[in-house]
Amino acid sequence: MGERIVTQTTDSARQYSRAHAEDFQEQLFEMLRIPSLSGDPAHAGDVRRMAEWLAAHMRGLGLDKVAVMPTAGHPVVYGEWMGAGPGKPTVLVYGHYDVVPAAMEDGWKTPPFEPVVKDGKVYARGATDDKGQLFIHLKALESFLKTAGRAPVNVKFLIEGEEEVSSPNLRPFIEENLDLLKADVCVISDSSMRVMEEPAITHSLRGMTYIEIEVSGPREDLHSGFYGGVVHNPALALVEILGKLYKPDHTVAVPGFYDEVVALTQDEREMIAKTALSEQQIKEATGVPAVWGDARYTIRERVSARPALDINGMWSGWSGPGPKTIIPSRAGAKLSSRLVANQDPHVIYKQLKRYIESVAPPTVSVSVRLLTTCEPALVPFDLPEMQAATSAYEKGWGATPVFTRGGGSIAVVADFIKLMDIPVVMMGYGLDTDGLHAPNEHFSLEMFQRGIETAIVYLEELAQL
Amino acid sequence: MGERIVTQTTDSARQYSRAHAEDFQEQLFEMLRIPSLSGDPAHAGDVRRMAEWLAAHMRGLGLDKVAVMPTAGHPVVYGEWMGAGPGKPTVLVYGHYDVVPAAMEDGWKTPPFEPVVKDGKVYARGATDDKGQLFIHLKALESFLKTAGRAPVNVKFLIEGEEEVSSPNLRPFIEENLDLLKADVCVISDSSMRVMEEPAITHSLRGMTYIEIEVSGPREDLHSGFYGGVVHNPALALVEILGKLYKPDHTVAVPGFYDEVVALTQDEREMIAKTALSEQQIKEATGVPAVWGDARYTIRERVSARPALDINGMWSGWSGPGPKTIIPSRAGAKLSSRLVANQDPHVIYKQLKRYIESVAPPTVSVSVRLLTTCEPALVPFDLPEMQAATSAYEKGWGATPVFTRGGGSIAVVADFIKLMDIPVVMMGYGLDTDGLHAPNEHFSLEMFQRGIETAIVYLEELAQL
Repeated sequence: MGERIVTQTTDSARQYSRAHAEDFQEQLFEMLRIPSLSGDPAHAGDVRRMAEWLAAHMRGLGLDKVAVMPTAGHPVVYGEWMGAGPGKPTVLVYGHYDVVPAAMEDGWKTPPFEPVVKDGKVYARGATDDKGQLFIHLKALESFLKTAGRAPVNVKFLIEGEEEVSSPNLRPFIEENLDLLKADVCVISDSSMRVMEEPAITHSLRGMTYIEIEVSGPREDLHSGFYGGVVHNPALALVEILGKLYKPDHTVAVPGFYDEVVALTQDEREMIAKTALSEQQIKEATGVPAVWGDARYTIRERVSARPALDINGMWSGWSGPGPKTIIPSRAGAKLSSRLVANQDPHVIYKQLKRYIESVAPPTVSVSVRLLTTCEPALVPFDLPEMQAATSAYEKGWGATPVFTRGGGSIAVVADFIKLMDIPVVMMGYGLDTDGLHAPNEHFSLEMFQRGIETAIVYLEELAQL
Repeated sequence: MGERIVTQTTDSARQYSRAHAEDFQEQLFEMLRIPSLSGDPAHAGDVRRMAEWLAAHMRGLGLDKVAVMPTAGHPVVYGEWMGAGPGKPTVLVYGHYDVVPAAMEDGWKTPPFEPVVKDGKVYARGATDDKGQLFIHLKALESFLKTAGRAPVNVKFLIEGEEEVSSPNLRPFIEENLDLLKADVCVISDSSMRVMEEPAITHSLRGMTYIEIEVSGPREDLHSGFYGGVVHNPALALVEILGKLYKPDHTVAVPGFYDEVVALTQDEREMIAKTALSEQQIKEATGVPAVWGDARYTIRERVSARPALDINGMWSGWSGPGPKTIIPSRAGAKLSSRLVANQDPHVIYKQLKRYIESVAPPTVSVSVRLLTTCEPALVPFDLPEMQAATSAYEKGWGATPVFTRGGGSIAVVADFIKLMDIPVVMMGYGLDTDGLHAPNEHFSLEMFQRGIETAIVYLEELAQL
């Protein structure tokens, strides 16, 4: 590793990507201007527009079978270049063109769908998650096609539009299109590294169970003067229920929640310790006055190899300006649990629902419903496709990568592994500090370029397996 | 009582009010079309428009010194008719022309600022609280002036525009205008009765301390995958804090909270028992599955003679459609405590603030701020002005009233008593079921008419004191 140099063909592709860096950036900015929010029905047209843009772009690069393929939700964009022939491996690139919501009032300094470059970074919703990262692979393939007229391996693209709502329709799509998607390896760039000089290959992801709780009390909001003291305030009832979900040691109080969690071995803990996170780092990265959590595990273990339960949103009554003296009729919360192998998202949902219903007071009505699930995934890192990625980073990025466990969830990873029986290699080109899902999300343009060059080298490395 | 008949003058006024009932209703509907939301800066223009409408209406009735008088907030509308001369008592009518917010999405069946009559009730925000009730007194005076050319007593009107935000500027206004406002008795119609045949004179009101709590965690929303498990979720921290405000027996856990509450005597408990509320009545009125509260007190005691603490609003993170996997950067709540004699709203604020700060975890920042206060009020009910009101109900309404304790708060009542040294007689013409501060607020047009007739008789009764 690290000793083979790249071929002339690969070097030409790399030179092309450098010469066209500005064009590539402008094209990325076009994508970032489309508010493709998959979770908000009001933006369905924008999501569609984003899919059409990507398909048109793929056609422009000369890909075949380019199509905006329908699903029960937002469409999948497909395109392929199979010119390397059946003797060469086929790599399936997965990415997602949808984004999470963003609004100025959340604290954005510039409009989230008007990309702005500052200090070498482009600021926009979706910059790093995942438009910037998925685009790297299109530009890597373009760099080969525009120089050598061919790439070292066959490449298929599957770009979905529902990753941010946990990909409810992707699994059936894969099942129905197994022949079309058939490949030897799947590459995903939708993760990140701590610092630019320490690229990371993610070999584990957390799963998810996302629920919504609604507490109903009176038929309508009541005057707090007339009923204050005799009606169980639904906001208070919700507070009581949510408070019972956690133990004082910050672990989850739901019976059975940890039963299927695979215990960490000493070797695994040592590997995780290579990317240790200090309390100081968390404080600086987030601004919190102190860290929190299960003290029996290190910080990195807690955010990658242990499950968590978070309140993602909570609402009741009046939150506008001034006082309003009501007893709200309803209160609600969105909660999601990040899961690890071998927790089953549907079993966790049943446990949460049963427990919440069991602690719900008789003075209100409580309903619990499932919003989405995602299975956790764990990929062995001694596979040749993984080692090829290590080599690609060394030659293309200029640094040896570490293998890490991701704290986030990519719904499709477990599906690819299970349905297509191929390894999934997660080569993330973002930084942990990119602020994805937060205001002022951004993506380093230097990393965008180094990502393209690494992706170019990876195609060559795969050809030599 | 109940034997004196009304004078010919009074009967003529009453006949006039009946003959002009439709006009009076149309005029009320005009008021109801103005969304005079005092708590929302965006509606400042509507509040002003409402004040100007009232002043114009008073001028049309021939009142003197009519003026829209500035305060540090929304203006006060003043007008007077002093034609009865110095030998006759002067009654000061207080009311408020502002309303609380209303929006279709809260559950209104018809637009809240487009009055609709259905089954003899007018549906609109402010119908009963307090536009319909304050208008009764203008129409009572008009009925005398248009028939006899004079009224039995002098009448002053003080109609404010900030009652729903706890009248922050009315106390200074009264202090600066003691000569202008000078009167022998103050009448307020801003309360309600249980059923139409049991009118109620309110002799006690609860006070209020209204606070807002904000919990701050990370600088900005975080991706729950990357930080779930190591950052104290501000929504959870808020849940933990709010949960500690109450004891399992549903009493308030804040130290000192009950220290100044005047204990109920056996006589007082018996008087309160005359308007007993059953669990069944609360369930039917509100739709809750069971009542709640401090089991040592009856339901009526809990909502009138005991303090309460309610969450009026609560917010954090994502409450829109679909899932969003964030750890919110902030969480907040609005809370208000209904107070009884002799609790001091500012002392209660200090107790709440100190306690909340003492239970706040070190993993987040917590701030507590005061939004508004209102002192509790208690008026003796054996005063002649109170007995005259009893007589007015018997002759004007047709039923003997009960004396009750109101659960709500009218900031100005304690001020009138303290600053002007006059009794305040609260003759409420609403029904407990009118839905004030709730969607589909309404006011019975029959009660509107009977209210006008009772107010007519009350002016005669006061003249005979």
